[in-house]
Parts: sequence; structure tokens; C-alpha cells
Amino acid sequence: MSGDPVLGYPVVVGPGALDRVAAIARGRGHRRAVVLADANVESYARRAAASFDGAVPLRTFTLGEERKTLTTLGSVYDALAELEVDRGTLVVGVGGGVAGDLFGFAAATFMRGVAFLNVATSLVAMVDAAIGGKTAIDLPAGKNLAGAFADPVAVVSDVRALETLPPAQIREGLGEMVKHAVLDGEAAFAQLEHWASESFERWPWAELIERNVGVKAAVVARDRLERGDRELLNLGHTFAHAFERDSRYALSHGNAVALGLRAAGIAARTWGPWSDRDQQRLVALLRALELPTSYGGLDVGGVLSAMRADKKRREGRLRFVLPRALGDVVSGIEIDDKEVREAVERCTR
Amino acid sequence: MSGDPVLGYPVVVGPGALDRVAAIARGRGHRRAVVLADANVESYARRAAASFDGAVPLRTFTLGEERKTLTTLGSVYDALAELEVDRGTLVVGVGGGVAGDLFGFAAATFMRGVAFLNVATSLVAMVDAAIGGKTAIDLPAGKNLAGAFADPVAVVSDVRALETLPPAQIREGLGEMVKHAVLDGEAAFAQLEHWASESFERWPWAELIERNVGVKAAVVARDRLERGDRELLNLGHTFAHAFERDSRYALSHGNAVALGLRAAGIAARTWGPWSDRDQQRLVALLRALELPTSYGGLDVGGVLSAMRADKKRREGRLRFVLPRALGDVVSGIEIDDKEVREAVERCTR
Repeated sequence: MSGDPVLGYPVVVGPGALDRVAAIARGRGHRRAVVLADANVESYARRAAASFDGAVPLRTFTLGEERKTLTTLGSVYDALAELEVDRGTLVVGVGGGVAGDLFGFAAATFMRGVAFLNVATSLVAMVDAAIGGKTAIDLPAGKNLAGAFADPVAVVSDVRALETLPPAQIREGLGEMVKHAVLDGEAAFAQLEHWASESFERWPWAELIERNVGVKAAVVARDRLERGDRELLNLGHTFAHAFERDSRYALSHGNAVALGLRAAGIAARTWGPWSDRDQQRLVALLRALELPTSYGGLDVGGVLSAMRADKKRREGRLRFVLPRALGDVVSGIEIDDKEVREAVERCTR
Repeated sequence: MSGDPVLGYPVVVGPGALDRVAAIARGRGHRRAVVLADANVESYARRAAASFDGAVPLRTFTLGEERKTLTTLGSVYDALAELEVDRGTLVVGVGGGVAGDLFGFAAATFMRGVAFLNVATSLVAMVDAAIGGKTAIDLPAGKNLAGAFADPVAVVSDVRALETLPPAQIREGLGEMVKHAVLDGEAAFAQLEHWASESFERWPWAELIERNVGVKAAVVARDRLERGDRELLNLGHTFAHAFERDSRYALSHGNAVALGLRAAGIAARTWGPWSDRDQQRLVALLRALELPTSYGGLDVGGVLSAMRADKKRREGRLRFVLPRALGDVVSGIEIDDKEVREAVERCTR
């Protein structure tokens, strides 16, 4: 188990890591545990539970983004109470991004905070959602509107879990990987360009995931509570969240991020030094990864008003995170409504 | 405005403090605000809101302990979203302990945390609930089972609000004041003994509240996240929570604390140096304050099993906080079931 000195907790990436959950927990001082899981990954959850000595209780929940709600949170709280979880118990959460956000928030607030270990089983969770200590649920008014900053005691990503995922679910994580590559720079971007033409089975997942964790960890460590630098991770996301909302979530988050990255690139072209060539490489990479670069089912006005409602607003003004070059991304940029509209329009036709 | 160097945020106690809420907020760097209030204290909330320049939106909620729930939390979140609260907005909460716990938890988690200013309008909030940065809601399985540690930017206690409270509501705070006096020592205890025979109008409230804030702040500062010393504040509370639960909350928290202090004293007599004379003074003070020292409507078995379910459990064993003498209280004490039962029995007949 290698700890991550930047994050302050270990991120264990590798084949078979699921069977080492108890050992990782023990390494962090935890012996008593309960396991909560997305019902879709119950078999993985059983393996994580079986890695502990004795009977570790396991509860599964039907999840999905539309169930990342206060109501489901209530069911999770009830389960924690029923399992007699107290401040000495470790809560192990198994699943993708929704599971990590929801179980993580429940653990962060049950009895005002019990320890949480995040077992990520989707690509998007491994490269993004599980890293950085943000937990949340959605509210009727918007995504991730209630939550907590709470670091897990460890993140465990068993890359073998990716082998059983359908390509569409793998693709859910690729948008964030492209975002991280733009933040990281030329080498990371070229690496993705290289693998884009290969089938997923051949990808060096452990290496790629660790690189993504490293990029995100470096940004997060500079700004744990999201007061400044961490906004860089919102590259493409002000657009993406609005695309998602206007589609009533018919557009998945991963696909929305791909569209959002293209939109941010378009806006960056009119604003700064981001070049035509940079933008062409970005669009070509998204296409090589079979991610969408336009989506017809959106209403431009609806996207723009969703954007205004976006929680990243500050003092009523919309600020954007835009690339200047590969490896050079800046936040807090105000751009004209006209240019925002132009970027949205080009991604919606 | 005097800051509290121990707590790290100011606790403003005094007559007319309600009209200085905006000035206090400004002193902490906050200009934009929304006000949430218990509907019972809407007139106070209007004064707090009016202290700001311009129109500060105000929302009221029907509260009460039975409404300190996930459902009410959802309504508060919805209001915060509707009022377009973002990370630059201060949430001012006005009300008693329930309001502070609920609005404070909502603020601590809305957008993963917005600033909160706690305007306490009940005695129990002023001397106890508003101090120490604990927020929570109740779950079906127990009180305060979900929540967050989150310091407010300031606490404002207008002692004039006490003038309009019925004596029964004042009495709700007296149990905690007796607890603080036992923690504080002879001088504080004797001060309460002195005032117990006077009518509430004559009590030096500002002085007494500041003394209580000081006692609690000193304990909290040593143990912000409740891993050790802070447990001292649970003096009488393991019993009190169980009394409350078994009565299905017919017994108020304040009255339960009075009973719980007596029970802790009985247990302390059989365990350590707490003397007959100490116990007699404690019971006499509770009676002089017209607080209950026994309550017939309880089932001993029910109280004991509620106690076992209490969240203060650790590794399955019940630990108690017990006085050794006035000003000398210790935590983590294990006592025999027989003696626990004896203490409960004597308080239930």
C-alpha cells in the first residue's frame, strides 16, 4: 500500500485491490467495519467484506444519479443506525461516483462523522469522483447542492473491475481524463492521443489512473476547501452542468463533460492564447475516444439559464475556467454573454 | 463586539444585541445575508434582518424538536436554493436550540458549507446549544444522529429575548446551567444556589450566560471534534437522553438533564469520592430551581435499553461522565449494570 503524500491518505490502484480492503483498513487503524454498496456491484462488495475477519455486515442500495437524493440519504442513515455504526466503526462504500458521493456524505455526517473508505468500481470514480474529499447529494434545485468536504481514510481502485464494464460506462470517465490531460500538459495529452486508437483492454489502466489521481491530487492539495485553485477542476464543467440540466440528464455527465470541454475551448479561442491547433487536437481526441462534441437535443436559452443558476456563480457573475495552452489553465475568467452563447450554440447543433 | 479567543469566534451577549447583527456580520467580513427563523420568533428575526442595509430576505419555518428532521432539512435546503444563497452569502439563523442545530447543519452542508451566524433566542441555546460548533438533526433511530461540526462566524444572544419567555422555557436552560456549574466548581455552583431563590427578572443574565459560555468554550476548545475531553459536557446526558427517549419526549430535554444530573450523582456516590453532601446540594439546587428530580412515567427496562442504544457507546460498552467533586468531573467511567439500574430506578419513582 503506497500512501499519497499530497492527499494525506492512500489511493491504492491495482488488480485485486478489492481483496486487500481489510488490510488497507487495518493499516489505517480500523478493524470494525460495515460495507455499503450499490446493488449493481454487490459481488465486489462481497469480496471487500470477505477480506475482513469474521462477519462484516453488508447493505446494498439501488442507486443511480436520480437516486442521489435526501430520501436515499435517509435510507443510508437508517441502515447505519440499524448496523449500530458508531464512531469506532469504519464505513466502507463500494460503487461508482454516485455511491462514493452518497455513502461518503452519509459517513461524513452520521454521528457528525465516522471514518469512510471508498472502494471505487467505475472509471469516473477512480480518476475523479473518489479523489479530493468532496461528497454530496443532489437537491431538486441542482446537482451536488448539499454535501461535505470529508477525506476518506483510503481510496481503493481495483482495475479489474473495469474489465467487466460496458464501453459506454468506461467512456463516462474519459471526459474527466481528457480534462486532466489538458490540466497536466503535453505529455499526458499525447499519451491519451496514443491510446485513443487502441481498444480498452490494451490500455495501461493502473498507470493512467495513477496519473489522473496525481493531477487531481496536486490541484486539490493546493485548495482543499475549494476557495480558489481547485476551481481549475471545473474546466468545462460550468458548460457541462448546464448541458446536463437542460437535457434533464438524458445526457450523461461524462458526455456532458466532453461537450463542455469543447465549449470551454471555443470560448478560450475568442478570449486568449488557446490556438486553433490546440482546439483541433482537443476535438480530435474527444472524437477518437468516441465522445460527443455536439448534441442536438438541447435548447440554447435553457442551457444559458441553467448556467446562470449554476452553483459556481459568485456575486451574480459567471466565471469560467479556460485553457490558455495544454498544461496552462486559468480560473475566474469573465466572458461576454455573446461569446458564452456562441460556444453553447456550436455544441448544440 | 468582544471576540472569544478560546472559541475563535465572537459570542455577543447583551441587551439589544439583535439590532447589531448586521454590524457583527460586517465585522466578520459578511455583507450579503439571508435570515432563517423559527416562526415563533419571527419578530426577532425581522429585527435581525432590519439591521442590514437594504432588503435581506427572511424565511420562517415551523420547528420544534419533532420537526428537527431530514424532511425539514430538505425544506431549508430548498429555501436556500430559492434565495440563491451561494458561498458568498451569510446564513443568519434565529431561534432556540432546534433552530441553531437545524439551520446550522443546513448551512454547514449547503454547497458543502456556507457561513452561518447563530442568533440564539432561548436560554438553552444561549448557555449551551449555540456554543461549540455542533449541528445536527434527529433520525428515527435517535436524537442528533446526523450532523456536522461547524463553527458559526458569530453567536448573538440578546438577553432581552429572555424577558418574554415563559418560566417553563427558561427552566429548559437551567439543567445545563447546573451541569456547567458542577463542571466549573464551587464559586459557580454557589452563585446558582444564591440566585435560585430570586425571581428570574432579577437574575444577572448577561453575566451568567457569559460564565456558562466560558465553561463550555474551555471544554470545547480542548476537544473540538469530541474525541475525548469534550465528553465531560455529557455529564448527566447518557441518563438524560435515555429518559427522554423512554418518555417518547414527553419529558423535555431540560427536565431530562435535571434528572440525569441526579442519576449521575447517585452513580458517582457508589463509584467515587462524590459525597453525600455534594449530592444533597445538587438535589437541593435542582429543587430550588423547580427542576424535576424524579419522574414517574418511565419504564426502568425501557430506559436501560435506550441507554444501550445511546450514541455515546464505544466498543459496545457504556461509559459515564461522573463528578468526583464540584469542579472535578471525569469521563470514560464504566459502572456495573446493577448500579446503573439503581440510579435509574431512584429517578423514576
